[in-house]
Amino acid sequence: MAPTPAWVKKLTPSGPQGEDILKEERAQSHLPVQKISEFLFTKTVLERKYKILKILEAEQVFDKSQNYFAGRVDKFETALARAKRLAQLRFKHAWTEEEFRMATDLISEPGPYGLHDSMFLITCRDQGSDAQQSMYYERAAKYEIIGCYAQTELGHGSNVRGLETTATWNPDKKNFILHSPHLTASKWWIGSLGRTANHAVVMAQLILNGKSLGPHPFVVQIRDMESHEPLPNVHVGDIGPKFGYNTMDNGFLLFNNLEIPHESMLARYSGVDPKTNKYIRPASASLVYGTLTFIRSNIVMQAGSVLARGVTIATRYCAIRRQFQDKDAPAGSVGESPVLNYTMVQIRLLPLLAATFALHFTGKSMMDLYNENKKRMGEKATAGDAKRGPGPEEINAGSDLLADLHATSCGLKSLASITAAEGLEVCRRACGGHGYSSFSGIGPWYADYLPTVSWEGDSYMLTQQVARYLLKSARSVLKGEKPTNDTTQILSTYLSRADMGAAFDVLGSDEDLVAAFAWRAAYLTFEALKHRDEHKKAWNDLLVDFFRLSKAHSQYLIVKNFYDALHRSETAAELDPETIAVLYKLFRLYALHTLETEASEFYTSSAVTVRQIQLARSTMVMKLLQEIRPHAVRLVDSWDFPDWQLDSSLGRFDGKVYEDLFHRASEQNPLNGITIDPYPNNGILFKSNQSAAYKSKL
Amino acid sequence: MAPTPAWVKKLTPSGPQGEDILKEERAQSHLPVQKISEFLFTKTVLERKYKILKILEAEQVFDKSQNYFAGRVDKFETALARAKRLAQLRFKHAWTEEEFRMATDLISEPGPYGLHDSMFLITCRDQGSDAQQSMYYERAAKYEIIGCYAQTELGHGSNVRGLETTATWNPDKKNFILHSPHLTASKWWIGSLGRTANHAVVMAQLILNGKSLGPHPFVVQIRDMESHEPLPNVHVGDIGPKFGYNTMDNGFLLFNNLEIPHESMLARYSGVDPKTNKYIRPASASLVYGTLTFIRSNIVMQAGSVLARGVTIATRYCAIRRQFQDKDAPAGSVGESPVLNYTMVQIRLLPLLAATFALHFTGKSMMDLYNENKKRMGEKATAGDAKRGPGPEEINAGSDLLADLHATSCGLKSLASITAAEGLEVCRRACGGHGYSSFSGIGPWYADYLPTVSWEGDSYMLTQQVARYLLKSARSVLKGEKPTNDTTQILSTYLSRADMGAAFDVLGSDEDLVAAFAWRAAYLTFEALKHRDEHKKAWNDLLVDFFRLSKAHSQYLIVKNFYDALHRSETAAELDPETIAVLYKLFRLYALHTLETEASEFYTSSAVTVRQIQLARSTMVMKLLQEIRPHAVRLVDSWDFPDWQLDSSLGRFDGKVYEDLFHRASEQNPLNGITIDPYPNNGILFKSNQSAAYKSKL
Repeated sequence: MAPTPAWVKKLTPSGPQGEDILKEERAQSHLPVQKISEFLFTKTVLERKYKILKILEAEQVFDKSQNYFAGRVDKFETALARAKRLAQLRFKHAWTEEEFRMATDLISEPGPYGLHDSMFLITCRDQGSDAQQSMYYERAAKYEIIGCYAQTELGHGSNVRGLETTATWNPDKKNFILHSPHLTASKWWIGSLGRTANHAVVMAQLILNGKSLGPHPFVVQIRDMESHEPLPNVHVGDIGPKFGYNTMDNGFLLFNNLEIPHESMLARYSGVDPKTNKYIRPASASLVYGTLTFIRSNIVMQAGSVLARGVTIATRYCAIRRQFQDKDAPAGSVGESPVLNYTMVQIRLLPLLAATFALHFTGKSMMDLYNENKKRMGEKATAGDAKRGPGPEEINAGSDLLADLHATSCGLKSLASITAAEGLEVCRRACGGHGYSSFSGIGPWYADYLPTVSWEGDSYMLTQQVARYLLKSARSVLKGEKPTNDTTQILSTYLSRADMGAAFDVLGSDEDLVAAFAWRAAYLTFEALKHRDEHKKAWNDLLVDFFRLSKAHSQYLIVKNFYDALHRSETAAELDPETIAVLYKLFRLYALHTLETEASEFYTSSAVTVRQIQLARSTMVMKLLQEIRPHAVRLVDSWDFPDWQLDSSLGRFDGKVYEDLFHRASEQNPLNGITIDPYPNNGILFKSNQSAAYKSKL
Repeated sequence: MAPTPAWVKKLTPSGPQGEDILKEERAQSHLPVQKISEFLFTKTVLERKYKILKILEAEQVFDKSQNYFAGRVDKFETALARAKRLAQLRFKHAWTEEEFRMATDLISEPGPYGLHDSMFLITCRDQGSDAQQSMYYERAAKYEIIGCYAQTELGHGSNVRGLETTATWNPDKKNFILHSPHLTASKWWIGSLGRTANHAVVMAQLILNGKSLGPHPFVVQIRDMESHEPLPNVHVGDIGPKFGYNTMDNGFLLFNNLEIPHESMLARYSGVDPKTNKYIRPASASLVYGTLTFIRSNIVMQAGSVLARGVTIATRYCAIRRQFQDKDAPAGSVGESPVLNYTMVQIRLLPLLAATFALHFTGKSMMDLYNENKKRMGEKATAGDAKRGPGPEEINAGSDLLADLHATSCGLKSLASITAAEGLEVCRRACGGHGYSSFSGIGPWYADYLPTVSWEGDSYMLTQQVARYLLKSARSVLKGEKPTNDTTQILSTYLSRADMGAAFDVLGSDEDLVAAFAWRAAYLTFEALKHRDEHKKAWNDLLVDFFRLSKAHSQYLIVKNFYDALHRSETAAELDPETIAVLYKLFRLYALHTLETEASEFYTSSAVTVRQIQLARSTMVMKLLQEIRPHAVRLVDSWDFPDWQLDSSLGRFDGKVYEDLFHRASEQNPLNGITIDPYPNNGILFKSNQSAAYKSKL
């Protein structure tokens, strides 16, 4: 690469310097950034972060500066090297699970051990018998075997029951025959499978005495432990490049009547008795719900912080970036306005800033509920069978909470993942042209996040589960049954007042604002129920209504959780009143902006008047934008992303945006190492220290 | 790469085969696909397409199968080889401009000659004096010099007046001194500049006698014609990887007091007289408007077809993809439903299908208007000064139409680019998990399209221009001036009836449906005017309202143009009544779906009642989805994208979706050529025919 000439090195950005601008931004607000961070994450977690960060920063292999230049093979090889080093560090420093998760968060890229470290280990541990735990889980924990979790197939995603791979019990040999009867039976999208894993948990239809008993998990060796070549009758490989996630080797996997031993079937909850050749029934199906509920709650929990990265980058950059003068600026004024002062930028960024907090508190509350429920079930179970987990009766005892948690997590997973994904793209666009550069740090992050919208239940189809639950709840309320949880509570409140109508003071009372969201969700529930039970509408004809209903219900939950989080006595104990007042403004901005975006549903349900919607839109929201604006930079600071994690020129804490963009382009960009021949009738290159493949190209 | 085993090669997808499914889909509708294609594009254009396609398909360099695997340098080198071959073919076959454009459309990737072939050539031709035309334009047309168009700077995008690069007239030497006073003055984002161009049109502030006269174009040599190395006092390079567009070398460029000769300044409309050292004033600023209006109209024109690619892919794949049974399916039914039968998929795809046609007809009408206007101005100009183009008086004569066209093109550029970009992502998600694979063909296309939202006027900030124009028009209508175009016409219609209110039969009459869109746009115009002129609200406080107003106005234009296109006698002459009836359903779907999405504005403006909105949502739109559903595959077929252009496993015309996904993953994927060592404490690779760089990675 040609060195940067001396006359270029002397140049600085014109006008006010980014560094000074961010200092001024931070000076115009007195929000206690450190206190808010501790309130969000706890001091323990923050300390953990900086301890781990120091270790990672010192390792050359985690250097991010060449991330955006590499092709697929190089990307994967680098990610594999990182995954290996991370595993070494984990043992060297004896990291806890939390510390290890923190490290992967900071590295912020999917790695080839990703599914080994999560689903493979968890499944072996939770679904394996005692013997299988030592055979699989313990060896996997030491990376002696490397695994993945093979469920999805080329032709079957969401519908697990439709899986085509079969595991047929062979009573003669007392083993299973694993087979892929069609091309569509090929396992597909399986993380860590493409090049890395030598074992897989394979979900396959169990066939016993000619009868299909549904999908069950089998641990299968797929590659040789020495040569790492695929075993006979196994065809396995990487599925190719993707929109993002290219550091991960998502793979395919086919079996040709592969014989696997009896102990392959994970037997903690169900199995085949090799003596009688009979099926051992599982304790309860709710256990599967439990895992999915955990995963979805986790998605909700992460959505706030996923989005906060984009909001942090865009907010800092929009404070620095100047473009045009305000049209009403007095004649003769000089200098352009920071784009963050334009209301058209504020209306895109600040409600998202509010959403990051709203999602964070909602996710936290979901995880608390999940843990509480788990503890309750676990405690009951201990009395019975401590080793094998809860039996069916214990599960039924917690089923009301579990059903609510399951439905809630489906709806919130859908809304939170869509909000975070689409919000990141809004942030990217708010950065104008430079948002398109990989150095913005938003695009690659967005591309890696996107699968979350489709996986663990497609965020569009999943909403049926919420609707089913709400309809069931509404039927019980109509029957006069007593409310047993918040859902049935808001439905019966609505029912008792539906005829006289509502008169919520959404602009003056925070409680009424929450109540208006509950009202709208309840109204839509009973509307949907009428369509289904009275008008006998087809389920398929109601899917669009169900999606809207689920969104309405989840928006209510988010608004409610945000409000509750601010309202608790712990909050008042940890934060000063001024800070809490700003957080209330964020709550109101999130709620009122949502209300005016979904105006027609609020109006149709009679939760609010048209006049209130107009006032919310033209007065309240605009006023809140203005009031929150001075705190914007400090508020994103409180999310506390280290620069090393953000890896963004635009989002640098010190505001040296242009210097960093220029440095990366002029000094770190390998494309500048080649000199081409520009004329059509000649070859491509003059000189190159790159590939030699170009010769074949003309 | 390990060969695919024989037992795998024998496998086929389970259930109904994609090929048969698409045949059935096509059999259930009688739409005349070929006729519709000819109606959309003309027979001439279709014949041109297949002629060019045949030539390109035969050239190995245009093979797309490795596109998604390469790193940045490789991607660029391949794109350069393609650009060179394309230039050769252009001369070999003596392609017309239309044929050349068709070839780049079919190749569908930005190439390193992109800005040379467009803005550099156009600017040299249109803004150069006769002498400059032969010096620059003619040599550039033969690729003897390779150019680019350098306007945007690191610190200045939309606001051209804020550019920092200076061109100072030196009266002693009779030349200009080109200089970049700050880092933010660096040219940035300049297509074809990074590695390719040896010349640039540089927009720089002309400084004459110490006075700044605003930005002017200069043709500047930046690299040596032989060695292709940067000239002294020029620092130039590629700006690095981007979210998409990585086949293009967007570049940066800085000058250190570089002396350039007098003839560098493009002098057709303005210049510096070297004898008197005085400025020669340009004829009119409207000429610049003209070019931008053309570019924006073009964006509108292309948006329909950009989106149609995603809709084609998603519609075909969703017809093939099966997932779950319909919940109301009779007990014992077997087989899963094609996801295109789910209303939650239909509501996402079919309104976008309608939008592709709506945008196409709107774009066509914009281009017709543009050409008509150009012709009118051109004709007038011929009478005066044929060589130099129109003088100021001719321009004023057409200014009413031009102002309308300018504003209209701003609003439509904003809406069309956002609709196409966001629509593509909707299509990608509707494909479920496989949408995320690069082989879907949607992601890479989307990533390359995204800059359109930000460039040629940021689609969020640009809407101010529409609002400014509408406010001006409203003021003239309020003053009682006679309507001179459609805009003032709808404003005065609204004004004459505002007090008595409207009663549009939006569900029963297509004309009323269009009128309701006009009404809402007019209502919002007068609301905005009231805020600005009566309440004296700050311009900045109205930006959000202006964005909404612009969207409403543009949606009116799209609905109107769609309706007009179907209503014309030419349409009845070219298409049979049944086909036209289906196109009317698409028109209604676009209009009513937009109406219910923007329900609160329609309601607030009293254009419709809440009851109408509810009926539109729950009855009309759902009914239209059902009626259009059987025609969906034939409708996307009529967009007539060759498979070679789509480059999509999911969107194949023959429906062999799973076979193609598998083939690409298993047989074309270079990552499957490496065998890794999976254990953390060893190195990465067992064997590799890839890079040797991995050794340094651990």
